[in-house]
Amino acid sequence: MTSPAVQTIPLRFIGGALLVLDQRALPHEERWLRCEHPEQVADAIRSLAVRGAPAIGLAAAYGLALAIDGGERCASEARIRVERAAHLLGATRPTAVDLSRALQRGLAALETAQSRGEDVATALTLSAEELARERLEADARMARLGAERFAPGDRAMTHCNSGPLATAGRGTGGGILDAAWEAGRLASVWVCETRPLLQGARLTSWELDRAGIAHVLVTDSSAGALMARGLVDRVVVGADRVAANGDVANKVGTYPLAVLADRHGIPFMVAAPVSTLDPGTPDGASIPIEERDPAEVTEADGRAVAPLGTEALNMAFDVTPAELIATIVTERGALEAPYGDAIAGVCGL
Amino acid sequence: MTSPAVQTIPLRFIGGALLVLDQRALPHEERWLRCEHPEQVADAIRSLAVRGAPAIGLAAAYGLALAIDGGERCASEARIRVERAAHLLGATRPTAVDLSRALQRGLAALETAQSRGEDVATALTLSAEELARERLEADARMARLGAERFAPGDRAMTHCNSGPLATAGRGTGGGILDAAWEAGRLASVWVCETRPLLQGARLTSWELDRAGIAHVLVTDSSAGALMARGLVDRVVVGADRVAANGDVANKVGTYPLAVLADRHGIPFMVAAPVSTLDPGTPDGASIPIEERDPAEVTEADGRAVAPLGTEALNMAFDVTPAELIATIVTERGALEAPYGDAIAGVCGL
Repeated sequence: MTSPAVQTIPLRFIGGALLVLDQRALPHEERWLRCEHPEQVADAIRSLAVRGAPAIGLAAAYGLALAIDGGERCASEARIRVERAAHLLGATRPTAVDLSRALQRGLAALETAQSRGEDVATALTLSAEELARERLEADARMARLGAERFAPGDRAMTHCNSGPLATAGRGTGGGILDAAWEAGRLASVWVCETRPLLQGARLTSWELDRAGIAHVLVTDSSAGALMARGLVDRVVVGADRVAANGDVANKVGTYPLAVLADRHGIPFMVAAPVSTLDPGTPDGASIPIEERDPAEVTEADGRAVAPLGTEALNMAFDVTPAELIATIVTERGALEAPYGDAIAGVCGL
Repeated sequence: MTSPAVQTIPLRFIGGALLVLDQRALPHEERWLRCEHPEQVADAIRSLAVRGAPAIGLAAAYGLALAIDGGERCASEARIRVERAAHLLGATRPTAVDLSRALQRGLAALETAQSRGEDVATALTLSAEELARERLEADARMARLGAERFAPGDRAMTHCNSGPLATAGRGTGGGILDAAWEAGRLASVWVCETRPLLQGARLTSWELDRAGIAHVLVTDSSAGALMARGLVDRVVVGADRVAANGDVANKVGTYPLAVLADRHGIPFMVAAPVSTLDPGTPDGASIPIEERDPAEVTEADGRAVAPLGTEALNMAFDVTPAELIATIVTERGALEAPYGDAIAGVCGL
């Protein structure tokens, strides 16, 4: 490899291993997990040690490279190992589309390498590195395009985490906030804590703190009161998957923010790299929504907060209909309604 | 006293002391605080050991009785002690109107007793007992009136806690759910956990569990996804204060539920005993909204969830405009828009 390895905040590929910043331990501890096998990367994704649609995709791409340990006796054995790893990694989380995209891309790199007789591990590593560089560039472009829409003094609200931890770049929504701050167009950020796993409180606060961006943490259900008092000028969130018609699947709680923003005439901006656009899914109703362990709701820090045996439902995502979205910022342009044509356009369809 | 003392789930007045079920320890432990002085009652209210607008009012009424310890040398000393207690208790929490109503009523009882030369402690105790009985009767009537609106199979959603723990009766919103369940008109309850203090998870789940009512716990921000999937037939909440025009102050997160319910055509019911109606406050914008300790947001169970030093804003209540409310159920009738006349009517104005 001639190009230097890409070092991101949440992921580092060094010495044949993927180092994953364990986001479950943030903000209190910066603990790194060393993954030497695809199984360990799958565990890291499943357990949310690494999360955020683009970062998951990148981690999975590196995970494919780890499937090759040099002990393969023939091309078909190497292929079987990589395909098994792709299957394992692909089954970790269902909602984001980046994951399956990254795996397809890795499998294509495998195909090419084998047809050319090149070293598969190197090809998969280079493919992942290329993905990482594309992520950085895409984030930078989205940040610029999104920040252009801000006006000086804007107080933005965000939900969950769409910063560097989520993308292994500048961030999608978080990158826009960062660029708007840098451009002097952002006064402060309302950070919704994002129950049940508190990615807003734990991760977005940590990122904004590192970046020196003014922010105030609130419970998710404070958004209505803040908007009603005129304290929110725009909402900026990321996306896990955008359907062909512009419906957006993102962290549960995004849809209520969009409905409230609509009522109060507040522009609602979604930052979605082209890797999250899914023209093959017609609308939000067709996006699979992950249900996670109810214990994430009934327990806090391993201690029960509800009576023992309480039933809970833990939907990880919700769908925001396109009609509530003012702008979908991609690295190929800031899209506006009608989204069907605009999305097909940036996807080259 | 000839009538037997009223025993409620959260409050018991026995042997010259007010026993308060410490709701901070629920659902895991049923711990009782023994209050022998008004200061202890004020502490119990301020710390949320007892909460819920009607229960706070009742606790304060008993608190006035505790101001008299028999050592008073004259009527004016007794009056000063009770007035001091009223001042102390009245300053504990600003949003609910029941509290100041209950204290005014106690002061009126003091006045009457002194003018008649009756024992002040007995008069204040009887006044509180009378309030407790009125609460029980009001809750029973609201429960019946509200439950009549349910249709068999209804899946209701509720927020925070408006059951027996909140009212020292059957509950306001919780009483309606209980009566609807008893009448075979309620299939199950979606319980919003109610961050930051998780009254839904800790208290409402505990009450519904005790009553054998089917329920499922969800994060507050799941409400949008549940409504969008057609899984919610009605929303029922309590009220901390209802303004003259029908605007309702209730636990933060109520307003977003009302906005979402409106979008999905789901009837939004508020249970508000006449003691929470405040014709002296013209609209929601005039209701004081309590801001509580930011640590309730930045910490969980005493452990920081955000980076140390993170700024947070913790508004305890929000305002739901009257236009989003289908019914305000009082013990004197289920009101519908226009609320101005209806509220004036039940308040006898």
